Amino acid sequence: MSAAEIAQAVSHRKLTALAATEAALSRIAAHDKVLNAFTDVTADRARAKARAIDAAIAAGKSVGPLAGVPFAVKNLFDVQGLLTRAGSKINRDLPPSPRDAALIERMEAAGAVLVGALNMGEYAYDFTGENVHDGPSRNPHDPTRMAGGSSGGSGSAVGGALVPIALGSDTNGSIRVPSSFCGTFGLKPTYGRLSRARSFPFVASLDHLGPLARSVKDLALAYDAMQGPDDDDPACNVQSVEPTVPLLANDVGRLRVAIAGGYFQQNLFPEAVEAVARVAKALGATQTVELPEAARARAAAYIITTTEGAALHLDRLRRRPNDFDPAVRDRLIAGAMVPAVYVDKAQKFRRWYRAKVLELFQSVDVILAPATPCTAPKLGQVSFTLDGVELPVRPNIGIHTQPISFIGLPVVAVPVPLEPLPIGVQIIAAPWREDIALRVAYALEQMGVAAAPAPRGI
Amino acid sequence: MSAAEIAQAVSHRKLTALAATEAALSRIAAHDKVLNAFTDVTADRARAKARAIDAAIAAGKSVGPLAGVPFAVKNLFDVQGLLTRAGSKINRDLPPSPRDAALIERMEAAGAVLVGALNMGEYAYDFTGENVHDGPSRNPHDPTRMAGGSSGGSGSAVGGALVPIALGSDTNGSIRVPSSFCGTFGLKPTYGRLSRARSFPFVASLDHLGPLARSVKDLALAYDAMQGPDDDDPACNVQSVEPTVPLLANDVGRLRVAIAGGYFQQNLFPEAVEAVARVAKALGATQTVELPEAARARAAAYIITTTEGAALHLDRLRRRPNDFDPAVRDRLIAGAMVPAVYVDKAQKFRRWYRAKVLELFQSVDVILAPATPCTAPKLGQVSFTLDGVELPVRPNIGIHTQPISFIGLPVVAVPVPLEPLPIGVQIIAAPWREDIALRVAYALEQMGVAAAPAPRGI
Repeated sequence: MSAAEIAQAVSHRKLTALAATEAALSRIAAHDKVLNAFTDVTADRARAKARAIDAAIAAGKSVGPLAGVPFAVKNLFDVQGLLTRAGSKINRDLPPSPRDAALIERMEAAGAVLVGALNMGEYAYDFTGENVHDGPSRNPHDPTRMAGGSSGGSGSAVGGALVPIALGSDTNGSIRVPSSFCGTFGLKPTYGRLSRARSFPFVASLDHLGPLARSVKDLALAYDAMQGPDDDDPACNVQSVEPTVPLLANDVGRLRVAIAGGYFQQNLFPEAVEAVARVAKALGATQTVELPEAARARAAAYIITTTEGAALHLDRLRRRPNDFDPAVRDRLIAGAMVPAVYVDKAQKFRRWYRAKVLELFQSVDVILAPATPCTAPKLGQVSFTLDGVELPVRPNIGIHTQPISFIGLPVVAVPVPLEPLPIGVQIIAAPWREDIALRVAYALEQMGVAAAPAPRGI
Repeated sequence: MSAAEIAQAVSHRKLTALAATEAALSRIAAHDKVLNAFTDVTADRARAKARAIDAAIAAGKSVGPLAGVPFAVKNLFDVQGLLTRAGSKINRDLPPSPRDAALIERMEAAGAVLVGALNMGEYAYDFTGENVHDGPSRNPHDPTRMAGGSSGGSGSAVGGALVPIALGSDTNGSIRVPSSFCGTFGLKPTYGRLSRARSFPFVASLDHLGPLARSVKDLALAYDAMQGPDDDDPACNVQSVEPTVPLLANDVGRLRVAIAGGYFQQNLFPEAVEAVARVAKALGATQTVELPEAARARAAAYIITTTEGAALHLDRLRRRPNDFDPAVRDRLIAGAMVPAVYVDKAQKFRRWYRAKVLELFQSVDVILAPATPCTAPKLGQVSFTLDGVELPVRPNIGIHTQPISFIGLPVVAVPVPLEPLPIGVQIIAAPWREDIALRVAYALEQMGVAAAPAPRGI
């Protein structure tokens, strides 16, 4: 059942929240040994919350649009009473969190039921979903393959239908990549739209939180429940809350849709080309737009990521270098040595690039781009060949996502259910226009071009 | 004659603007061979402007509060038709400026007459006023001594009474230091208050422009003429313009005045201690406040200065290293190698420090601190002894100014006319309260505690 169906059934007393919760806990118990999506299952908390919802319904009280909907969160969200491991070994020495992350509070205020915390790449510096401490999240369509990262558990849990909604974070692609590999819808909202309060950061100027779901309506329901300003995240100060669920429509006739050209048509496996072509065809998109200097944007995103990440972790790098995943540690150490003059240049470029890309949205409403260059690679795979050049997998999975998050644009990643594996396409809108990206994604879903495929690997 | 007296006399036809201009040009011709304050004298332009003012007055037109007042600008201000050397050799290959700097336009709109451009430390990275390409600006009270920097020509020209008003820039102390050494009043306004459009930058987040003058009223007249937002400087967007000249009063009885303690009472020669004591006594100040972590603030200001400066000059450092002053170049090269993680830390500290210092202004209106640790050192002097430690002069002259400009607080440096040399005291106010600092400076001037001494060295 989708989140929308569960909430409807629970609200109308056709299903209890407790039964919905138990069903999710059973699916987790049955399949998570394979998927390794969960690091914590909060069964007691979930049952208590579900019972409270059922009691409220019995008392005739209002219970919110996500009543009884099970969800889980990447383990960089604070969960009261759990330690926020953020995929690391080092954070396990921290005390338990005193309070839930802001977005968990908002999901639960809408009636959703938190059932657990999800596996992720260490400190979110990852595109694979592999984790040396907890083992890899596995792809629900082929458990020998990557879930994608860093929100690997989020992609795996939703793609595997263990929960209808999961929350993740996306700094350079960490929601969009696992959405692509696991065949889920994923929303990376505009920078500043959703509160990051009480989540473990990575790169303050690039970090976004957002939902993954198996349908656009569920994605929009979660997004609507979480919208709104929050003084506890200085970047999250947009006052207007704009409900998107009522706006979903399969009529996109008046929207101007363009395909990202140049950089975004390179370094692609045939399946990525095919997925973008299918989406473009369904939307009647023929024009191509160029995001200027996209390669430079990716380079600048790298510079800012590695240096801000290194600044965040500097004390840990000094005190506990051997407790890091070496693949994460070595990039952070490199970041600690990058001269500030390059960051200055990257930030100046960023302002230029943002202004140039925003100009494009004067003549288009939506831009289409691949979410990943390929479908999910094999777990442990270290290289692949892009345009005839053998490259390391790990950093290059995000080649098409980084230039978009770099300037905080909202994106819905939609899954195109190719055989044998799904792959995602980015629906990119202007800042604060999540509604447009969601509307396009909904139309694609209605046309059958985008869909979360049933998990075949579990 | 003061600027106020000249403007009054010119407006009332007791003096022509041309005569005031010729008098300034004559003083420059007579004394600048010693002072070396001017790098360019714009005699033709000045005479044309003066004649235009006299013609306007003859025609009964309004001519502004600075009618006929000669002034000059540090040579990092664009002057139409001149090249903006910014104290460097390298910039002399630039084309002439097509348009005046914003503040020159505003001064001339108020009737002032630009008579020339002023010597300065190379690229403003200087506290001495020495320049290897143009020779040093000299102290008007003793030409064997430093004028201070980097606005050395500004201090020398005003301290030497060649012009009543000069404009300078202050990144870490470059208005306050020459004001202290040359015995002038100097205003470093709140960060963002005065437009920097069409001036050569140094450190975008620390650069301030402002006036130096021989009286507080002249300082306030120049400041009032230059206030107001400017779209050409993104930092300069304060909409309100608050005239300060009418507010000047020698009644400071209701203001709460505190002396900066700790850091600001260390590393001082006896004359600096004496100057602060005189000012404090005159104002009845007895309480002391601590700016927390001021030493760290200075260190952070250094980190940001050297890295942002290096980013600005990186191409020049690569292409023309031997055309820099070695003392400037070597610090910029060092800055080019500073890791970004330290800048990140400095910026985070800066936010903390700013918040902490702003709290102090809930219980005080004005904070007093020395402007320099000593009176003007000898030209070429490389070391001095502060609290028993022999230190290089060049970077340490600004030891008491850097922690203040670091967070953009407005400061009036007032000259205390000690024998044999004057020395400055910083009157520090909360952001946007230049009016309070100017009012305190005016009271000190009225009491005879602060005064620009007559130049004795020329």
